Amino acid sequence: MNGAQRLIRTLVDCEVKVCFSNPGTSEMHFVAALDEVPEMRAVLGLFEGVVTGAADGYGRMTGRPAATLLHLGPGLGNGIANLHNARRARTAVVNVVGDHATYHLENDPPLAADIESLARPVSGWYRSSASADALAADTVDAVAAACGPPGVVATLVVPADVSWSEAGGGAVAAPGRGSLRAVADEVVSGAAKALRSGEPAVVLLGGGATRRRGLMAASRVVNTTGAKLLCETFPARLERGAGLPGIERLGYLAEFTVAQLAGAKHLILVDAAAPVSFFAYPGIPGYLVPDGCEVHVLAEAGAGEDAAGALEALADLLGAPTDGARVQAAERPERPSGALTAASASAAIGALLPEGAIVSDEANTSSIFIPGATAGGPVHDWLCLTGGAIGQGMPVATGAAVACPERRVLSLEADGSAMYTLQSLWTQAREGLDVTTVIFNNGSYAILEMELSRVGAGAPGPLAHAMLDIGRPEIDFAALARGLGVPATRVATAEEFTVALEGALAADGPVLIDAVLARG
Amino acid sequence: MNGAQRLIRTLVDCEVKVCFSNPGTSEMHFVAALDEVPEMRAVLGLFEGVVTGAADGYGRMTGRPAATLLHLGPGLGNGIANLHNARRARTAVVNVVGDHATYHLENDPPLAADIESLARPVSGWYRSSASADALAADTVDAVAAACGPPGVVATLVVPADVSWSEAGGGAVAAPGRGSLRAVADEVVSGAAKALRSGEPAVVLLGGGATRRRGLMAASRVVNTTGAKLLCETFPARLERGAGLPGIERLGYLAEFTVAQLAGAKHLILVDAAAPVSFFAYPGIPGYLVPDGCEVHVLAEAGAGEDAAGALEALADLLGAPTDGARVQAAERPERPSGALTAASASAAIGALLPEGAIVSDEANTSSIFIPGATAGGPVHDWLCLTGGAIGQGMPVATGAAVACPERRVLSLEADGSAMYTLQSLWTQAREGLDVTTVIFNNGSYAILEMELSRVGAGAPGPLAHAMLDIGRPEIDFAALARGLGVPATRVATAEEFTVALEGALAADGPVLIDAVLARG
Repeated sequence: MNGAQRLIRTLVDCEVKVCFSNPGTSEMHFVAALDEVPEMRAVLGLFEGVVTGAADGYGRMTGRPAATLLHLGPGLGNGIANLHNARRARTAVVNVVGDHATYHLENDPPLAADIESLARPVSGWYRSSASADALAADTVDAVAAACGPPGVVATLVVPADVSWSEAGGGAVAAPGRGSLRAVADEVVSGAAKALRSGEPAVVLLGGGATRRRGLMAASRVVNTTGAKLLCETFPARLERGAGLPGIERLGYLAEFTVAQLAGAKHLILVDAAAPVSFFAYPGIPGYLVPDGCEVHVLAEAGAGEDAAGALEALADLLGAPTDGARVQAAERPERPSGALTAASASAAIGALLPEGAIVSDEANTSSIFIPGATAGGPVHDWLCLTGGAIGQGMPVATGAAVACPERRVLSLEADGSAMYTLQSLWTQAREGLDVTTVIFNNGSYAILEMELSRVGAGAPGPLAHAMLDIGRPEIDFAALARGLGVPATRVATAEEFTVALEGALAADGPVLIDAVLARG
Repeated sequence: MNGAQRLIRTLVDCEVKVCFSNPGTSEMHFVAALDEVPEMRAVLGLFEGVVTGAADGYGRMTGRPAATLLHLGPGLGNGIANLHNARRARTAVVNVVGDHATYHLENDPPLAADIESLARPVSGWYRSSASADALAADTVDAVAAACGPPGVVATLVVPADVSWSEAGGGAVAAPGRGSLRAVADEVVSGAAKALRSGEPAVVLLGGGATRRRGLMAASRVVNTTGAKLLCETFPARLERGAGLPGIERLGYLAEFTVAQLAGAKHLILVDAAAPVSFFAYPGIPGYLVPDGCEVHVLAEAGAGEDAAGALEALADLLGAPTDGARVQAAERPERPSGALTAASASAAIGALLPEGAIVSDEANTSSIFIPGATAGGPVHDWLCLTGGAIGQGMPVATGAAVACPERRVLSLEADGSAMYTLQSLWTQAREGLDVTTVIFNNGSYAILEMELSRVGAGAPGPLAHAMLDIGRPEIDFAALARGLGVPATRVATAEEFTVALEGALAADGPVLIDAVLARG
């Protein structure tokens, strides 16, 4: 058994059974070994950003890591933006990067680069495997590190000679499952004391607290105390819909967050960082906790603490009834008619959202009405742009669909963002994934038009606006989708959009809808 | 004048007048400043790999840097693969990366990342500007560093508050032009002695030696001494065609290089590294200089030495006649007919190559016949995949077309490679660039099929071959091009291809030809 076979066998033994791949020559032994370990499912991406984003989506939905397979430093480079998003989502990923043979690096061949320097900023764990004999243990360590908790990107570099050499050494046991650390009683009682103070308080959920258990307990807490319940701006995975507590997200714009937190005297952080502005602006604060507001950390963000358990303990300590959560009633918007706008498209999505849908949301400015329109729909998961690096949405949708073949995936994309990792569509077609992609086509980097007016740069001229205009030439997303093997349709009215969406959600395999929004 | 205005004004004063851009919020002051300094031409790319590769192509053709504009660490990440290629090409690039406001980094907002760690592996110079007052001087230093010689990627990080703050300080003088260092007489005479020894010798050209002056002098040298003339596998810019000395490139495969160098007792390196294998293979050496062959460095690779001058001095010292270069006669293949294959497509390209064409070659396995078919065509430039990171060809073609609007650009692309930075087509359409793109569509990562059989991984099974099969689903490049605003046609015979190529080369603006090669 060579190193590559040993690597894949060990991954499978550790229950890592999907590998999103974009290999090159230094990974050919890995590729050749796939037939030896057919329990590993290799999913090909045409671009590394698809690979790393899909691993993120898979990990968010399963709680277990997928592997990647990337080619040397430049291949890793192409995957960095979505590894950055995975890092911010605290997703477990086993990031496998092939390298030149160890003895060949001194020759500085053309593709040689400093892989470690590129990988460190996105990796919670990093190792370059020194030998085929060590590779099984290195792989187990990578899986254990990736799983945490908290989940991290664990980058395992595999030199070509480590892949092709005979791998000795005995079997290596798969790592035990890490468990969340319980929050100390005095931390819970401290939060209870603040909430009983009678002063205005906010409970802010993030990370592992935005799933059913955490939401139900948090709802009990705020219903008993009158505190305000919020969650972070871009949760990695938010469960929502009828029968679950609805929750307001912190605003993207600092001004909104300031308004949401105004007057709070206590801020209870539950696996969430203290709110900061997404970007700094001249004269606007970056740290958004109000002056005079005391911060209480119930569960530290990204520290592997049992946030949901802490919320349940807090609710119990506060004497909240066990059935004291207030949940969202079932309700849907009507099917819309008339002009196709962000609002009418949202109504159509709310009217048609399937039971158990997974929504990958990278619609940016076009998505502001969608959470409201879907709040009372059937229970679903919402996956956000955790790290702000656009080009995440379509790969995450792809990985989520691989993870959950029995569920429908709805990929909501802004036109600008879609052009970073559009190659995702080809993988969706190849794998026959039930992903419905909606492109909100406004021909503009609309969020930047908004930002341009907000940063205090004066009155921008035509050269500035031209940099944000992606409608010249117009992008035909339906043509692009068909070119990648995905059926597509272009629509321009609310009725057309609703009919197209209904058809797409009933279809086998991927469909794309190019939703040309009314401009003006 | 704020920092951003000062930055752009200083770039223009330093004769950096094109900025390939993919901005985000932290770059909005830069964008807003474009109208204040209309001498700067901002060229928008939909993806950062387009931006950095276009800067590489521009720099190769002008010898002067373009600027980039990238958004934070993840935006830089998306541009790294083509910065890696630019580094290997020794192209001057002023790589401008926006960052969060300095005081906001301590808040660790979602898009924060270690930009320096990401940038260092591809940057010959790096600085994060500390203040608006310092920015003009920082910019001048970046331009000077980028230009060298040798050219490097100079990464200048510009925090948002440096962009928006009032920029004091006086005017800063543009840097003087760096000049190449002359090679010492004793180095030239050492090379002459080796060449006069009567023993078999090879002269290997790279870097700055693959242009007209270097080629003419090198041809005089080898015609006088009987040495063999070769150039590196992937020159950044090779001038060739009728009236110039033809030159054989080192083979991509180690076995070929070994055969090319067999028996050599002296290897004269002229701005070229000693040959190494592109990848290592079990049992095949990585360092390819034959045993017993003495290496003489006439001009050190990438050290800013005057390689062409050294070759002229060497030719003179050897007593080579000044008209002693042997140049390629004008000759072209016939227009082909029959099946569309790599060979017949090459003949069509050779038959039709326009005077002064710029060829960006990323056709990989499909391009093996093209150099031969074009060797006797009119004088043209050939731009290669210097760093081996695929996804270079279309961006480099884009940048070359911006640099040389009076010349035709021919972008030769393998189907697999095209899918990394296909967004280039949109920029070509937007800017009305005369780029003809040929996709060699064989539905496969054919080079990896070859490598898979070469790495000694045994007989690969169906799961392995599936990882190299990009024809399932089939990619329709004509549809993709039209979706991005570029007219396109799909052809499947040699006659159709020839007619399409002739039309494309006569058209205004970009055209794509999806050349579906005969399979089997």
